[in-house]
Amino acid sequence: MFGKLSHTVRTFGYQEYGGPMLESFDLYAAKTGEEIVNQQLYWMMDRGDRKIAVRPEMTPTMARIVAGKIHELARPIRLFSIPNLWRYERPQRGRLREHWQLNVDVLGGDPLDAEAEVLTLAVEIMAAFGGADKMQVKVNHRQLMDHFFSKKMGLTPEQTHKVVKAIDAKDKVDPAKFQGWLAEAGVKPEQIGELENFFKSDLITLLNTMPCDGVLHLLELFKTLTEAGMKIGTQIVFDPTVMRGLDYYTGTVFEIYDTSPENRRAMFGGGRYDNLMALFDKTAGKEALSGVGFGMGDVSLQHFLEVHSLVPKLDSETDVMVTLPKAEFRVIASNIARGLRAEGYHVVTPLAVGNFGNQLKLANKHEAKVAVLFGDDEFAKGEVLLKNLLTGAQTSVKKDSVVAEIAKILGPRNQTEK
Amino acid sequence: MFGKLSHTVRTFGYQEYGGPMLESFDLYAAKTGEEIVNQQLYWMMDRGDRKIAVRPEMTPTMARIVAGKIHELARPIRLFSIPNLWRYERPQRGRLREHWQLNVDVLGGDPLDAEAEVLTLAVEIMAAFGGADKMQVKVNHRQLMDHFFSKKMGLTPEQTHKVVKAIDAKDKVDPAKFQGWLAEAGVKPEQIGELENFFKSDLITLLNTMPCDGVLHLLELFKTLTEAGMKIGTQIVFDPTVMRGLDYYTGTVFEIYDTSPENRRAMFGGGRYDNLMALFDKTAGKEALSGVGFGMGDVSLQHFLEVHSLVPKLDSETDVMVTLPKAEFRVIASNIARGLRAEGYHVVTPLAVGNFGNQLKLANKHEAKVAVLFGDDEFAKGEVLLKNLLTGAQTSVKKDSVVAEIAKILGPRNQTEK
Repeated sequence: MFGKLSHTVRTFGYQEYGGPMLESFDLYAAKTGEEIVNQQLYWMMDRGDRKIAVRPEMTPTMARIVAGKIHELARPIRLFSIPNLWRYERPQRGRLREHWQLNVDVLGGDPLDAEAEVLTLAVEIMAAFGGADKMQVKVNHRQLMDHFFSKKMGLTPEQTHKVVKAIDAKDKVDPAKFQGWLAEAGVKPEQIGELENFFKSDLITLLNTMPCDGVLHLLELFKTLTEAGMKIGTQIVFDPTVMRGLDYYTGTVFEIYDTSPENRRAMFGGGRYDNLMALFDKTAGKEALSGVGFGMGDVSLQHFLEVHSLVPKLDSETDVMVTLPKAEFRVIASNIARGLRAEGYHVVTPLAVGNFGNQLKLANKHEAKVAVLFGDDEFAKGEVLLKNLLTGAQTSVKKDSVVAEIAKILGPRNQTEK
Repeated sequence: MFGKLSHTVRTFGYQEYGGPMLESFDLYAAKTGEEIVNQQLYWMMDRGDRKIAVRPEMTPTMARIVAGKIHELARPIRLFSIPNLWRYERPQRGRLREHWQLNVDVLGGDPLDAEAEVLTLAVEIMAAFGGADKMQVKVNHRQLMDHFFSKKMGLTPEQTHKVVKAIDAKDKVDPAKFQGWLAEAGVKPEQIGELENFFKSDLITLLNTMPCDGVLHLLELFKTLTEAGMKIGTQIVFDPTVMRGLDYYTGTVFEIYDTSPENRRAMFGGGRYDNLMALFDKTAGKEALSGVGFGMGDVSLQHFLEVHSLVPKLDSETDVMVTLPKAEFRVIASNIARGLRAEGYHVVTPLAVGNFGNQLKLANKHEAKVAVLFGDDEFAKGEVLLKNLLTGAQTSVKKDSVVAEIAKILGPRNQTEK
């Protein structure tokens, strides 16, 4: 699963970064959401009396890495990471709260092009698992929301914050409770109709009734996405109910939903943020690096893949079993294994002398695709037997051409890795 | 560096496993060395009042995973992991003590074959970095040591433990201190000559003077290693001073040394252990799974590679830059980028409309190998320009054959990943 994620992200030119699991508590106290810091952070005092936290999110680490290499990195800066993160939530079945999250960020570039790329990447990731037609990206814009809540509804930022929280939780509570929250947040009874209307609007209507920068930006973004081959109206839609909280995001925001009714919560989301450096590191310099990114958790992806029967089948990692029926074949068996490994094939050996039948069983248990077998008659002729375990076909080949014959069956492999 | 490690280990058929960063403190209290638990473990109480440790080693996690899947795993069981581990040591420059360690283990198989494979793998890992002739594997056997210390020297296990600790630290202290330690450990002055003689012995001498199981096993092992193509006497040698402490290991033990005099400590080591399950999990069942393995830290490997100028050059990860000189080329640029990504190429775009010269500079900054350029004349003919940034060669090709032409320059890529 992680292999497919990182493969797709790399084809868009994103570079992987890492970072330490333990960080100073203060790094998160600054900007990470209050709920996370107060209630979900694992922390401890170390032996040097420093307050150490187990990382609950990756963005502060990314900001620090970018700050440290800000003059070396080619623009636009494209970064990804698949870190393990920890949040203390209700313990279940004695398990600790570790999860993995793909973090993707692009810093710099024209906002339209950068946002179009990140949205396209989100769709392509789902497509790589065969799920492109089973999900929908819902897009909104913070300036449109601000325009509506402040200019049209007359709400203060604090009131807006409460309305946003109420809307975020709307699907989880009964209508009376939701209405109560709205009243608390300063929404007058006669405004509820206007609020509901807004949440049903499409972009063209808003262009007439509320022609603000947010609407114009989204129309341009949808044009760019169309040119990039995305299907607006099905794969990607405007949805004024998308909120993504209020902390980082300053422009376009989006959430990716499963189209299955079994799975009604957003799977993951992201958006545009201004001046990442100022968020986490006041000393990083004067360049206001703005970006767009998303974080995708392994749990929602896993759930999505299960609901749609898209969990990738784990192909066997074993290519070849080189058997060892007699100790006297050890030299030739070692030579063959070494030659295949040098070409990048994954080769297992039984690690014990044993009879033909048992070793063939072992080859099947390891899900090897080819077995190399030794017979006395073939050995005398300088040959070995290759058995294709997928088709059952067996041939006798010269011992020096084993690697070439196996390459014909299995195709080439990467010979080296960085 | 990690890519090369895991590639080499996979060619030997080892399967990767993972595990959580935070574990119950008790998991380590049981068997991990006392020094680690008392002085080096990061731990905290969680909100459920459980004592949680940040993992200092991977073996307990491996034992638990094997215990949980003991009936599914094909024998021999070959596993590896490259976890991040934490030990609290003297803090330097405000850095926390995170390091990465390749852990390799094989469980089951004939001990001779299994040990030969693990030693071969250790050599092949160093060979993958070009360092096979710059290191030496030193091998010893616990039964030979026990035979010598108990039968020949008449030492109790506790005294032997002290002698072993003294020998482990011998190179770090002056001779008088070392002699003092030996006296404390119950080594009589007239025995010191015998001890020193033992540490200079070769296997053939010991076969005559001390023909125990340990000596016979090592002679057999060296024969098997010779058949597997290893060079005994240069790449792999017998060394009776190799100790590896006393905790896990019950048979063959080994350490890998840098041949450079700048680097006199063992780079990494491992050995044979009996009944892994009983070590960490008393409830795992009756099968006594014995194995052989090693752990190789990133710091010593990095140091070795630096001393010998073998640090792998980081090849650029970017294959192609698809430029965007005018907004009207966005559709064709997107199509080309999508086609290349589907074949597994890593493609970057400038994320902004910009002039030819600047975008070519950007392509070089990203270390792209090929740039796709658009000219009005070529566009009118349905063609685009491919510039090979390594050779400078530039050709005009039909837009539908861009992927095929780039494949001719760059070779094929893996199209999908698990």
